[in-house]
Amino acid sequence: MDRRLLEDLLTRVQRGEVTTADALAALRDLPFSDLTFAKPDHHRSLRTGLPEVIFGEGKSVVHIVEIAERLVARGDNVLVTRLGPEQARALLEAAPEFRYEAEARLAVREVVPVTVTGKGTVLVVSAGTSDHAVCEEAAWTATLAGNAVERLYDVGVAGIHRLLENRARLDAARVLIVVAGMEGALPSVVGGLVAIPVIAVPTSVGYGASFGGLAALLGMLNTCSAGVTVVNIDNGFGAGIAASRINHL
Amino acid sequence: MDRRLLEDLLTRVQRGEVTTADALAALRDLPFSDLTFAKPDHHRSLRTGLPEVIFGEGKSVVHIVEIAERLVARGDNVLVTRLGPEQARALLEAAPEFRYEAEARLAVREVVPVTVTGKGTVLVVSAGTSDHAVCEEAAWTATLAGNAVERLYDVGVAGIHRLLENRARLDAARVLIVVAGMEGALPSVVGGLVAIPVIAVPTSVGYGASFGGLAALLGMLNTCSAGVTVVNIDNGFGAGIAASRINHL
Amino acid sequence: MDRRLLEDLLTRVQRGEVTTADALAALRDLPFSDLTFAKPDHHRSLRTGLPEVIFGEGKSVVHIVEIAERLVARGDNVLVTRLGPEQARALLEAAPEFRYEAEARLAVREVVPVTVTGKGTVLVVSAGTSDHAVCEEAAWTATLAGNAVERLYDVGVAGIHRLLENRARLDAARVLIVVAGMEGALPSVVGGLVAIPVIAVPTSVGYGASFGGLAALLGMLNTCSAGVTVVNIDNGFGAGIAASRINHL
Amino acid sequence: MDRRLLEDLLTRVQRGEVTTADALAALRDLPFSDLTFAKPDHHRSLRTGLPEVIFGEGKSVVHIVEIAERLVARGDNVLVTRLGPEQARALLEAAPEFRYEAEARLAVREVVPVTVTGKGTVLVVSAGTSDHAVCEEAAWTATLAGNAVERLYDVGVAGIHRLLENRARLDAARVLIVVAGMEGALPSVVGGLVAIPVIAVPTSVGYGASFGGLAALLGMLNTCSAGVTVVNIDNGFGAGIAASRINHL
Amino acid sequence: MDRRLLEDLLTRVQRGEVTTADALAALRDLPFSDLTFAKPDHHRSLRTGLPEVIFGEGKSVVHIVEIAERLVARGDNVLVTRLGPEQARALLEAAPEFRYEAEARLAVREVVPVTVTGKGTVLVVSAGTSDHAVCEEAAWTATLAGNAVERLYDVGVAGIHRLLENRARLDAARVLIVVAGMEGALPSVVGGLVAIPVIAVPTSVGYGASFGGLAALLGMLNTCSAGVTVVNIDNGFGAGIAASRINHL
Amino acid sequence: MDRRLLEDLLTRVQRGEVTTADALAALRDLPFSDLTFAKPDHHRSLRTGLPEVIFGEGKSVVHIVEIAERLVARGDNVLVTRLGPEQARALLEAAPEFRYEAEARLAVREVVPVTVTGKGTVLVVSAGTSDHAVCEEAAWTATLAGNAVERLYDVGVAGIHRLLENRARLDAARVLIVVAGMEGALPSVVGGLVAIPVIAVPTSVGYGASFGGLAALLGMLNTCSAGVTVVNIDNGFGAGIAASRINHL
Amino acid sequence: MDRRLLEDLLTRVQRGEVTTADALAALRDLPFSDLTFAKPDHHRSLRTGLPEVIFGEGKSVVHIVEIAERLVARGDNVLVTRLGPEQARALLEAAPEFRYEAEARLAVREVVPVTVTGKGTVLVVSAGTSDHAVCEEAAWTATLAGNAVERLYDVGVAGIHRLLENRARLDAARVLIVVAGMEGALPSVVGGLVAIPVIAVPTSVGYGASFGGLAALLGMLNTCSAGVTVVNIDNGFGAGIAASRINHL
Amino acid sequence: MDRRLLEDLLTRVQRGEVTTADALAALRDLPFSDLTFAKPDHHRSLRTGLPEVIFGEGKSVVHIVEIAERLVARGDNVLVTRLGPEQARALLEAAPEFRYEAEARLAVREVVPVTVTGKGTVLVVSAGTSDHAVCEEAAWTATLAGNAVERLYDVGVAGIHRLLENRARLDAARVLIVVAGMEGALPSVVGGLVAIPVIAVPTSVGYGASFGGLAALLGMLNTCSAGVTVVNIDNGFGAGIAASRINHL
Repeated sequence: MDRRLLEDLLTRVQRGEVTTADALAALRDLPFSDLTFAKPDHHRSLRTGLPEVIFGEGKSVVHIVEIAERLVARGDNVLVTRLGPEQARALLEAAPEFRYEAEARLAVREVVPVTVTGKGTVLVVSAGTSDHAVCEEAAWTATLAGNAVERLYDVGVAGIHRLLENRARLDAARVLIVVAGMEGALPSVVGGLVAIPVIAVPTSVGYGASFGGLAALLGMLNTCSAGVTVVNIDNGFGAGIAASRINHL
Repeated sequence: MDRRLLEDLLTRVQRGEVTTADALAALRDLPFSDLTFAKPDHHRSLRTGLPEVIFGEGKSVVHIVEIAERLVARGDNVLVTRLGPEQARALLEAAPEFRYEAEARLAVREVVPVTVTGKGTVLVVSAGTSDHAVCEEAAWTATLAGNAVERLYDVGVAGIHRLLENRARLDAARVLIVVAGMEGALPSVVGGLVAIPVIAVPTSVGYGASFGGLAALLGMLNTCSAGVTVVNIDNGFGAGIAASRINHL
Repeated sequence: MDRRLLEDLLTRVQRGEVTTADALAALRDLPFSDLTFAKPDHHRSLRTGLPEVIFGEGKSVVHIVEIAERLVARGDNVLVTRLGPEQARALLEAAPEFRYEAEARLAVREVVPVTVTGKGTVLVVSAGTSDHAVCEEAAWTATLAGNAVERLYDVGVAGIHRLLENRARLDAARVLIVVAGMEGALPSVVGGLVAIPVIAVPTSVGYGASFGGLAALLGMLNTCSAGVTVVNIDNGFGAGIAASRINHL
Repeated sequence: MDRRLLEDLLTRVQRGEVTTADALAALRDLPFSDLTFAKPDHHRSLRTGLPEVIFGEGKSVVHIVEIAERLVARGDNVLVTRLGPEQARALLEAAPEFRYEAEARLAVREVVPVTVTGKGTVLVVSAGTSDHAVCEEAAWTATLAGNAVERLYDVGVAGIHRLLENRARLDAARVLIVVAGMEGALPSVVGGLVAIPVIAVPTSVGYGASFGGLAALLGMLNTCSAGVTVVNIDNGFGAGIAASRINHL
Repeated sequence: MDRRLLEDLLTRVQRGEVTTADALAALRDLPFSDLTFAKPDHHRSLRTGLPEVIFGEGKSVVHIVEIAERLVARGDNVLVTRLGPEQARALLEAAPEFRYEAEARLAVREVVPVTVTGKGTVLVVSAGTSDHAVCEEAAWTATLAGNAVERLYDVGVAGIHRLLENRARLDAARVLIVVAGMEGALPSVVGGLVAIPVIAVPTSVGYGASFGGLAALLGMLNTCSAGVTVVNIDNGFGAGIAASRINHL
Repeated sequence: MDRRLLEDLLTRVQRGEVTTADALAALRDLPFSDLTFAKPDHHRSLRTGLPEVIFGEGKSVVHIVEIAERLVARGDNVLVTRLGPEQARALLEAAPEFRYEAEARLAVREVVPVTVTGKGTVLVVSAGTSDHAVCEEAAWTATLAGNAVERLYDVGVAGIHRLLENRARLDAARVLIVVAGMEGALPSVVGGLVAIPVIAVPTSVGYGASFGGLAALLGMLNTCSAGVTVVNIDNGFGAGIAASRINHL
Repeated sequence: MDRRLLEDLLTRVQRGEVTTADALAALRDLPFSDLTFAKPDHHRSLRTGLPEVIFGEGKSVVHIVEIAERLVARGDNVLVTRLGPEQARALLEAAPEFRYEAEARLAVREVVPVTVTGKGTVLVVSAGTSDHAVCEEAAWTATLAGNAVERLYDVGVAGIHRLLENRARLDAARVLIVVAGMEGALPSVVGGLVAIPVIAVPTSVGYGASFGGLAALLGMLNTCSAGVTVVNIDNGFGAGIAASRINHL
Repeated sequence: MDRRLLEDLLTRVQRGEVTTADALAALRDLPFSDLTFAKPDHHRSLRTGLPEVIFGEGKSVVHIVEIAERLVARGDNVLVTRLGPEQARALLEAAPEFRYEAEARLAVREVVPVTVTGKGTVLVVSAGTSDHAVCEEAAWTATLAGNAVERLYDVGVAGIHRLLENRARLDAARVLIVVAGMEGALPSVVGGLVAIPVIAVPTSVGYGASFGGLAALLGMLNTCSAGVTVVNIDNGFGAGIAASRINHL
């Protein structure tokens, strides 16, 4: 029930066409969402910036195509995350309008062309080449959410000069996404060099006592650089959205 | 060696008062920090917004006063976090210029009056009354870093209507800090209601399988609301700084 | 805004005393809870059965008394859980109307006398004498929520005959709360003996590799007796409420 | 030794055909189960409601068929859980009387037709589409145990309005099974909306710091909604049985 | 109902004083334990060897004395474990017949004098002086259970020669209890030197990544010496009983 | 250097053929093992009872055959544990003298026929059919180490009567190996029924919060039945050896 | 900007060809690494000893060859670690100059022949044959870093005499790398026998409660032998480098 | 039996005063340590460098004094670690010859004056002021073991320039001990700057998800700087000994 339906109801109460008892009953059963007027606007604004997202891991291609077609029918852009090469090949056969970003393991279908609506640049910084897939997931997510995105890769702390040589690039960004596996120390160093928001992404890169990224996650949560925030292990997508939220302020 | 010292050196090379070999040697041994001119500015901007911070837990009052006096001598505001009531009493005796915010367990000494420099409002949202101390640490940290701060407390998910009644306040903020213990579900719900940045703070409130806040932390890291970021358990201070970084963009 | 307020509004729209535009605005800004008519009834039914609950651990007596007085003013019964003997003594001085159940670490204030509204008996079964406090918390919570409660204590699996001798009591109950620490095996055995609901409560009783009740918790979650459900470690209160929910069906 | 055998023994003692010493010896060696007369009744009542269950994971089809045939020979319904598609195909070839519910990964053989014996409706609620298999396992288990079952899927907390729109369905049920992965917050919200029993099922849906469902499990155990109980990760079967136990009261 | 009662019943059936129907009913309701004749013997044999045990940790002295007096009244020896010095002082005041072994934190009351009934010697071996209390708990428990006990302390693996010098003592024992904290390596070395049973006891001695004895526990469970078995962290009592079970074969 | 070599040396010192300085030097460099005369005997006694053991998991067949042939050449029986069906097939092709026990995943080569040297019976008790492989590993290991072995399977605690019906078999054994997955409660119940040694073996049977057998392991370590000892998860081999150590006393 | 460029700049300032303002600007923007003259030397010295390292796990052969060719072009030796046999075969086809050490899972390309530059011998000691791959990774890494390397394998603590017979070899080394899985006790024993540096390497060898090497790792961290240091689970490479650092002092 | 005793024995065999049979028996029963001549030398060399160590935590002063006096009687220096201020006060009263280093929580008694025997400098580097006690324990341990020790404190990665300004000091050392709590990132950065051995010491400094130093420990184990080794949490003593072992090469 949208605003007009509610106006109708009130008008008919006013005119005596509907009793107060019936109106009361109608209002009582009113679906919640119909009354929360601000919400559709919020949804709309979200949709203009961000495609609808399908988490691809473990889903069949049939399932993905089905959801995607429903979204496309509503005029939404579609973003499929965590899509392996096998799934991607099948998806592109079934729905050739998709574009596959292999490194980011993302498939995108732009119904409405994505435009840059964020105010500054989101810079994705990585510790090593093994963090690549997570970085690209973050970078593409932010891009598709309407942000200008740059990349600064392989500047881990074991060769600290590589990072320091690039401080100008850190300073030029509006939001930093810092991706690291193993001990996850890079966000601490970066967070001490800049005053802008730093979103840390631990990756599952490592072995032994890295426990699938737990070491990096704990490292980032315990950072000595005040004001660094963290997302889940390998969650490039979440970091991209968080950066976009900030960059659209 | 600051900028003037470097100018002097170059001038003396130009005048022939210093040989290039000697200048080369001087530069080679130059402390790193002296060359990174951008850094002091960054530091200065930080200092204007944020007082210097002393982590009070486990420090003796003598130690705290000593560090504080050094900072005050440099003209810095001083913020002491995690300061228990016993420590606070002793600190105020030794240094009565401090102000103690008991609920936030913070002591502050304003040498330079704090002014609001952040663009919008930082809203601190809490799940329950037991999260109070962490909330206040976040709120006061953000305040002292130059942000307008508001509070919306005790709106946990077991009574979801309490949160929904206050959506206008969520929408009016520029950054949200959402604090919750136990299962830590509040940021997920809040993150689904707003498009602005949400910083989640797990607290150690709970018992049994909460494992000192681990349950809330894991819950927040695994949030189904894209774009929520997380800080360490009970880290109200870190959340306040992260919010301030965003709010000063 | 309760049902009468809404009826008033609709009546005044009908009478033309309020324009549809004003009514629309009023409804738009209507606090969510005011429209959810079913909820107050649900709340009321809850209140008749269950006192309002204050989690006492770590709260000051001043704070507890303040909350309690607000609840009493609303006509609610009040239940304070996890209240140590020191807190209890102070509470009873400040508010002598409270009754303290020392073993259950509960304080109760009955404004409305509790009557038995549940259909059958809730039987609290314990493995050993060390689980006593948690058992009593469960038993008293269920009692205060309007259930007939019985106790069968110290029938742990190391002397299985103690349990088997009491099967008639197991069969006579409507809901079982089974409390155990250490390896937490009792609910598995009990769950294999009865067809009624079994709520398992792990306790932190134990040492070494019990890890504060984790061993018992994992044991209960992995029970080979189908249909046993589990609450948090030491959560006698939660088990009491869960049993009451079932017993009031 | 069943009841008749015992009557025989006592009669022969009475007639002097057996000395008390021999009878004493016979009774001393009497298998325990033969004396527990109530037990077979309890078993029988269980069997009428619930099929015998075979945990299929890791078992060979030969093994499953062998156990199943023994059960069928006793006149029991048979339920095979955790049965993958490969196993199912082989099972149906070997025993075509089975029916396979692919989404629930269950195979069923109804020797005695299942009838609804539970008093109300068991409603299975899920947070997201990825929790589907666990939900279906719960739903089919409850169905086969003689319960009317309904489903309310994909109403996770990141879009809280989806849940709130369906409160009438929550209120209409007698028992709720609430299934969620990731942070596992849905049972907390649902538990705050209803007064009936809520059984929470954490799923292994998630990645990174979800640790195979541990995050959801801890979230549910630490729920701030009193009276929610929990089963093991992905244990739809256990939740179905627990709901059936309650619904048959 | 003990043996005599059952003989009475059978005699009365024989005499026709009790009908078979009444006898059947009496037997049906017979408490389980009364029929399990072997059990009292087993209990008796246990009691002759082993005093009844009260876990003292966290129990009040009043409570301990009350249980103890009940046991003494039944003619049992009483062993109180995990009894701190404060508790011990109060216990001895209330019940001066107890003897307190301070290092083992055990209090004993011998109603029936303990005699050596085990066949060989139980040797308690320790890695370091810090494991003393756990060793003494094991040694005294085994002693009170009727075993000859010897001690070989402070022969940890960092000075392997200390152990090797004492191989004759290892070979002379019938059962070994090997106690170690930190990395818990001693049982692996001992297990490789002897062919007799080795019971490993991890202690909580250590700090940091010893995690309260977890490191030692895991080390012992993963021993490369086949045939070493393990008890809970600090569980000297359990090791003493296990050794006694073996030594009484 | 064996005993004779040492006698020679001393004799030559006596005869003056070797100076004391040279003898001193010779003794200083003496390999340690040459002096430990008792050790070979111990080894010999071990070898008569127990075959040499090769841990098969992850080893190539070539490697296994090579080690096995070296052992056979020394006259040792050979036991290969954790040998999958693929490995077994290849091993039997390469070394047809081996016998493969498929359920126990063991291959055996008896050079010296195994005879029963243990004094009593080792009874292997299991909770469920899924624990089969671990049980068989324990049973075959004990058999090959010279013990009479019996089996009592599928008597888990969810149907406690199955266990109680078989108490005579428990009492008839000299050592019990009790195998259980899931919550691992069976050893606690068994330990309370008998006075003989009980070795508990947790298995990795389970899912979700069983964490690969951790739940069962913790349950067994925290058993409330005094005197139960535990081996590593799935370690049927270790339990078999431990039982044999005890049974050969 | 290297040393010559800086000299040029200073010379041109001296000659008046560049103003001090321009020189200041040039220096301000100078990449950090160009000023840290000592660093290239350090790098060079490293390069002479140690090949550049590529972590092979999960990398495609195309990727490895590409990085390797870039390094070869710079005149560096190349070491690829964690390279499986499939990857190795493909790599050798694409780049036949590589040499593959199958047991160490390392591929090496020596552009500059490796010479022994370390002062003493690095001895790699292992507990069992299953630790072979990690040992070889450590041994080959140290070899390629310019160290004389020896091996002492299969001297685990369950047969302590094997280690003690080889004490002369321990004493002859300059640095020890001690590799062990399961309970990880070997470094403790070794550390007590020698005064030289001992680097402990836990391996993931084991099962059940070894938790992928965690048990061995914790054991080594908690060693009772003072002065043993530890690297990550299975990190033979890291141990080899650490040993080389020490051996090149 | 020391060297002289053995020489005596051989001399008496040579002279015929002792038969070879008696000598054989004497040698056979000879305590192991007496024959391992190299060991006393090793011990002696250790003793000259390093005092005997008593782990003070949890020990009574009486106990400490007793052990200390025994060591002093043997002519050893004594080092007591982990000694709190209360214990220290009591120790100094009882044994005023001790010197207490309050920050390092160490008490020392120098019977033989400590001289510098290590070849270079051990530099202790710390991340923050809270790591002070652990640093001092490491520094004093290394000092007492005969090493020249320097300190470089409070150069954590959040202000990376503080570390970089001090690279000359890093380069001048022979061994580095790098101490850090929280995320433990400092050793990774330091390890990338130097080619000498780096021993990382995690501290328990932190809160929440630092889990008592676990985060720092995991960070250091997963360091991306090859060749960094790690000791237990807060184990300054172990790091000091490890550094001394290296520095005495």
